[in-house]
Amino acid sequence: MAGGLSTDLYELTMAAGYHAAGEMPRASFELFVRALPASRGFLVAAGIEQAVEYLESWRYTPEDVAYLRSLPALAGAAPGFFDDYLSRLRFSGDVWAVGEGVPVFAGEPLVRITAPVAEGQLVETALLSTVLFQTMIASKAVRVVEAARGRAVVEFGGRRAHGTEAAMYAARAACLGGFRATSNLDAGCRFDLPVSGTMAHSWVMAQPDELTAFRRYLDVHGRRAVLLIDTYDPLAAARSIVEAGLRPGGVRLDSGALGPLSRSVRAILDAGGCAETQILASGDLDEYRIAELLGSGAPIDGFGVGTALSTSWDAPALSGVYKLVEIERNGVVAPLMKRSPGKQSLPGAKQVWRAGAPDAAAGDVIGLPGEPAAGRPLLKPVVRNGERIAAGPPVAELQAVCHAAVCGLPAAVRALRDPAAYPVAVSPGLQQLVSRMTATSPRFDPALP
Amino acid sequence: MAGGLSTDLYELTMAAGYHAAGEMPRASFELFVRALPASRGFLVAAGIEQAVEYLESWRYTPEDVAYLRSLPALAGAAPGFFDDYLSRLRFSGDVWAVGEGVPVFAGEPLVRITAPVAEGQLVETALLSTVLFQTMIASKAVRVVEAARGRAVVEFGGRRAHGTEAAMYAARAACLGGFRATSNLDAGCRFDLPVSGTMAHSWVMAQPDELTAFRRYLDVHGRRAVLLIDTYDPLAAARSIVEAGLRPGGVRLDSGALGPLSRSVRAILDAGGCAETQILASGDLDEYRIAELLGSGAPIDGFGVGTALSTSWDAPALSGVYKLVEIERNGVVAPLMKRSPGKQSLPGAKQVWRAGAPDAAAGDVIGLPGEPAAGRPLLKPVVRNGERIAAGPPVAELQAVCHAAVCGLPAAVRALRDPAAYPVAVSPGLQQLVSRMTATSPRFDPALP
Repeated sequence: MAGGLSTDLYELTMAAGYHAAGEMPRASFELFVRALPASRGFLVAAGIEQAVEYLESWRYTPEDVAYLRSLPALAGAAPGFFDDYLSRLRFSGDVWAVGEGVPVFAGEPLVRITAPVAEGQLVETALLSTVLFQTMIASKAVRVVEAARGRAVVEFGGRRAHGTEAAMYAARAACLGGFRATSNLDAGCRFDLPVSGTMAHSWVMAQPDELTAFRRYLDVHGRRAVLLIDTYDPLAAARSIVEAGLRPGGVRLDSGALGPLSRSVRAILDAGGCAETQILASGDLDEYRIAELLGSGAPIDGFGVGTALSTSWDAPALSGVYKLVEIERNGVVAPLMKRSPGKQSLPGAKQVWRAGAPDAAAGDVIGLPGEPAAGRPLLKPVVRNGERIAAGPPVAELQAVCHAAVCGLPAAVRALRDPAAYPVAVSPGLQQLVSRMTATSPRFDPALP
Repeated sequence: MAGGLSTDLYELTMAAGYHAAGEMPRASFELFVRALPASRGFLVAAGIEQAVEYLESWRYTPEDVAYLRSLPALAGAAPGFFDDYLSRLRFSGDVWAVGEGVPVFAGEPLVRITAPVAEGQLVETALLSTVLFQTMIASKAVRVVEAARGRAVVEFGGRRAHGTEAAMYAARAACLGGFRATSNLDAGCRFDLPVSGTMAHSWVMAQPDELTAFRRYLDVHGRRAVLLIDTYDPLAAARSIVEAGLRPGGVRLDSGALGPLSRSVRAILDAGGCAETQILASGDLDEYRIAELLGSGAPIDGFGVGTALSTSWDAPALSGVYKLVEIERNGVVAPLMKRSPGKQSLPGAKQVWRAGAPDAAAGDVIGLPGEPAAGRPLLKPVVRNGERIAAGPPVAELQAVCHAAVCGLPAAVRALRDPAAYPVAVSPGLQQLVSRMTATSPRFDPALP
């Protein structure tokens, strides 16, 4: 379970530094993605619910504190840092966040934390990995769903996910992004998701012969269950199904040339009175392969997608960061701006406004909260003084939110290949702030010797 | 926490099928990787310890059983499947596995489970994600360590890992593969790993000015702490450090052109009496970038590696599978072989023998356990009748095992680019078994209409 130690050592050394200085100014941090992966026209925010859960349960147990006290790297910290400070620490800040399922773009804050600076700092690592992972998977899921053009897509990727926890959250994010179901029971149970599954090749191999395997499975799970037909020869399996008078709900193909195979299997099923039997396909599928199969007219009714989804194979990390954007000094909130070469950040706590009718998106503006609204605001309060404001909606509801919002994006932004850039502008007020800060604070000169 | 539900629904539908048939034959499953990622000459086995822990604690809680009973997909299962079978289930089988830290190749079993067939089936998903993830990360780590040519490499990737659990296990696998330390405190605490960390840009930005930020940090954490110098202008920061008479243990560069920058900073430090101050580099590094930097003579003493390591960015999943290889029928153990097009598997429980002096590797043979040994066996018993045989060694020991074993591989196999193929042969006995089974069992014809 994620806890106070789900963080990087330097967050603790910095917290000890603030504690030693005897001041814990209130500060704001924003989590955003620097740039979209090359193939992505947009991202879909996800994992906010788990981020809030993390903040609610965040603490340093006596065991955690004992461990930290034992570290040479924290030998300089005062005893009070461990006994008084860490032991009693709870998250006391405010959180604003974009709703789960809402499309977001490079540079737009997904989450803003305002809290005593050390609190904001200590939760950085877990917030990043939690929000970025599900955002990345939901964003991939939306692409797969788009490619499937209304056919059902089911998440099968748990076995190749980065561990059992990643498998569970990948399934949640997949369903949030529009997948019909997941094979992952952890996720099904915890997030009330539809679960789906057929049989493995091993079931067929373990039985005396393939037809016996099919019959035994249907005997237990009903005549409309799905049968996996490619353990030996899928065409022979399809023929034996119709000859035996079975009428399964579906057959699954998991290997081979899925286009021609599905056509041949469809012909056998139709000729044999199994017109109602669906053909499901799996096996190293992604949005490109699905688009190709359907583009070629393959008679496939549903897809199982695994590794490509659960690892976001073609873009397995987002360039997400969490930056200090303002801090209270002598009672005044001062905007801050990172100036490292190639890694500048926009100063100040920010809001994102989206233009267009509800559920439509015709351009965003990143600005300062006090500026005149340029559309509807995306960031909303979710935690106040450490307490959650409202329970997160169920995933089924988030899926509907996501679907409507993605449909409201310009078609060119949704393209699977070479998506168009969505217009994101910086507000006049924020531009002025950047100019003022760039003119007055130390400046990095990228022209190196 | 991983448990009985950390699996795919179809494992349960199959288990219900075996239960309904009233027979639970003993079966063997093997976990292996079909093919190495293009850039990898070898993999390093890891995550076996967590796989064994999973099997030890594996069970279906009353809540799990209640959830499963509620699923329409399991409506066909008999009440006894839930009450008698699942509720009392414990892993009762045997496990053989390759030692953590040992190099492995495509097609070689890393883990073999022999158990009543439904048990072997139900644990599939969690075993795959657990073993494949750490194996993938350890394999990446070894490459980064190789590129660093003896300089320290530290794992910083938690924030971009696929969630907080993935962050923790990535850190373990990184240290197993030779990383000097991790910034991840969960992993440090749980696996007794060295932890490391400096400060973030936010620390510098939150202070009145950069030099004050440096001084305050050294005041708390000792005069030899490491300072991050690229928040504004790294050369100006290096100059101010020497002018102020600070003698930090190191300075860290996290952006910009690290080659030229490190040279300029080195010159400033050396001229200013800070010859002992190390230069550490981070920021989107991987094995290729590190090799390039060191190849160009960049005076960098240590590297922090994040995203590329914790997600295995260039190969974020392994083509790992878990296949039924034999089953007991009428008291006789029958080998089984998957025949799906392009996905054939080798039949029977297998052993891997490695030729060469201890710690050297001059070629492997995959064979049947009864065959004459062709070197030292890699698979060893780790669980017997559901009970662990011995505690897993600490990570520091596994790191030494891994280092020695990797050094024993042919140099061309260890190459970062275009690695040579390591010789892996199939034993005569196994070849004969394959021939016999191919001749007698149903055959798939890949020539489709």
